[in-house]
Amino acid sequence: MEQIIAGVDLGGTFIKFGLFNEAGKLLDKWQIPTQECAVDFVLKTIVQEIDARCVVSSGKLKGIGIGVPGAVNADGMLISAPNLGWSMLDIGNKMKEYANVPVCIGNDANVAALGEQYFGVGEGCNSMVMVTLGTGVGGGVIVNQRLLTGAFGAAGEFGHMLVCEEETKPCTCGNKGCLEQYASATGIVSLAHKMLKGSDKASILRSYETFTAKEVFDAVKADDALAVCVAEKFGQALGKALSCVAAVVDPEVFVIGGGVSAAGQVLLDYVEKYYRQYAFTPSKQTTFKLAALGNDAGICGAARLVMLADERE
Amino acid sequence: MEQIIAGVDLGGTFIKFGLFNEAGKLLDKWQIPTQECAVDFVLKTIVQEIDARCVVSSGKLKGIGIGVPGAVNADGMLISAPNLGWSMLDIGNKMKEYANVPVCIGNDANVAALGEQYFGVGEGCNSMVMVTLGTGVGGGVIVNQRLLTGAFGAAGEFGHMLVCEEETKPCTCGNKGCLEQYASATGIVSLAHKMLKGSDKASILRSYETFTAKEVFDAVKADDALAVCVAEKFGQALGKALSCVAAVVDPEVFVIGGGVSAAGQVLLDYVEKYYRQYAFTPSKQTTFKLAALGNDAGICGAARLVMLADERE
Repeated sequence: MEQIIAGVDLGGTFIKFGLFNEAGKLLDKWQIPTQECAVDFVLKTIVQEIDARCVVSSGKLKGIGIGVPGAVNADGMLISAPNLGWSMLDIGNKMKEYANVPVCIGNDANVAALGEQYFGVGEGCNSMVMVTLGTGVGGGVIVNQRLLTGAFGAAGEFGHMLVCEEETKPCTCGNKGCLEQYASATGIVSLAHKMLKGSDKASILRSYETFTAKEVFDAVKADDALAVCVAEKFGQALGKALSCVAAVVDPEVFVIGGGVSAAGQVLLDYVEKYYRQYAFTPSKQTTFKLAALGNDAGICGAARLVMLADERE
Repeated sequence: MEQIIAGVDLGGTFIKFGLFNEAGKLLDKWQIPTQECAVDFVLKTIVQEIDARCVVSSGKLKGIGIGVPGAVNADGMLISAPNLGWSMLDIGNKMKEYANVPVCIGNDANVAALGEQYFGVGEGCNSMVMVTLGTGVGGGVIVNQRLLTGAFGAAGEFGHMLVCEEETKPCTCGNKGCLEQYASATGIVSLAHKMLKGSDKASILRSYETFTAKEVFDAVKADDALAVCVAEKFGQALGKALSCVAAVVDPEVFVIGGGVSAAGQVLLDYVEKYYRQYAFTPSKQTTFKLAALGNDAGICGAARLVMLADERE
């Protein structure tokens, strides 16, 4: 009997589901709103949702992989997920109350990277680093086709790399000058506002009451001089951070994903320009790619966690 | 019959040898000067040296591990070793002409890290990052007790992480503001000279015609105000770089080795102070240790390469 793998992307707003066959083909996907965050309610809901499409107790379900918005250590322990109010939780063990199948968990950004490596633009490569530019900046490190989790669940937390010691505004983490302050959607917008305030340069951005990172990059594409300054600062911060990442793990390929990456090639151009300047010679040849799976990266990577756990046995 | 593993640390000045039993016990060690760098001469000499103490063709030799001063990729290919004038060399294959045993190679700083992880202060830990402060700055990253080599052999090349954008002097690599310019033995001395020139502060260092990094740290221990400024800059550069390393691989422990680390706890104090300030919260708890194996780290790690290759089979 061919078995089914469930990949779940547990977010603060939606819970996304995907069902895959053992070869990794996506058979079905859907999402539901995250109604409440009580641990038991969420885990029970996840099992019920999967059960409705693929009877959990039938023996047909090989396992459930879950990406969660928090730090997960090498033993699969969720250390903390602030958005859900969860901490020190052995989800795999807890899930046994609802489903008698193997459960694998990972940090959501780590898991999305794994999805891109196996199902997306990283297909066929052995080592890959993905950086996700969304509201915040996250990422994942893949070596020998496996995720690095880190001793304290913090591997791939690129958002909090120090890239600018002169920064005066604090980051959400309490430090100052973190990558997230220049390369996240919110960081790009706040950088643009700061530059608009600090200069008299004409800019299309002045005509908007509010604007998004997408509109900043649209302005870059239209050669808006001020938006170009924002893109330079963005590219410098991210290029510098990734040159440091390369000095640590030296991956085959860097993948840029998350909402901000919708800006496309122009975004890569600014990052690569600074990366090639700062990187140590052997790592200058690393390839840059845009993520391909969009919102499916999470469910794909979660399913891949189950495939990898099975390979290991 | 108990087999023997040979660990070789191939440097530009000395070739160091160690013979280990299968349990990893060091049975014998010695070194010879590196007389000439022709590939065939060096490889033949290595086999002859080992053969003189443990007959290579007897079946008693399980394998030879070699740490080389250059970039080695995941396939064991030596990409380039500038000090030896070697490039694109499959040493394992080349060695078959002289010895019919498995040969494993790795970058010398990477291999030293592996030695410390298995035989030294990292014993029992699963993930470890070692940074070696010598004439230059090198290092190694160990995850799941195995070395990361990197796609282009540049994993653990911490010396060329950009830590100071304001630097005007170029690093040996051509970039400016690399960690090596502040944390290597030569970097520390040149930092001290720069500070002596730029200030009128009294300092014991002014009484020396020339001085070493050791003397700078001796002055720090004697509360020499100018030397303390050098130590602060050193600690800031290395603490910042290691906080970035933690955001990538989040190791259990950082190990500081190389000649400069002989300064002892005072050196760790300056690094840890800045590391704890800059690191992302979960990684603030990472432990710092001084390396324990000294010059034996290379031969130990080289032997460990052979043990790991054997485990994998």
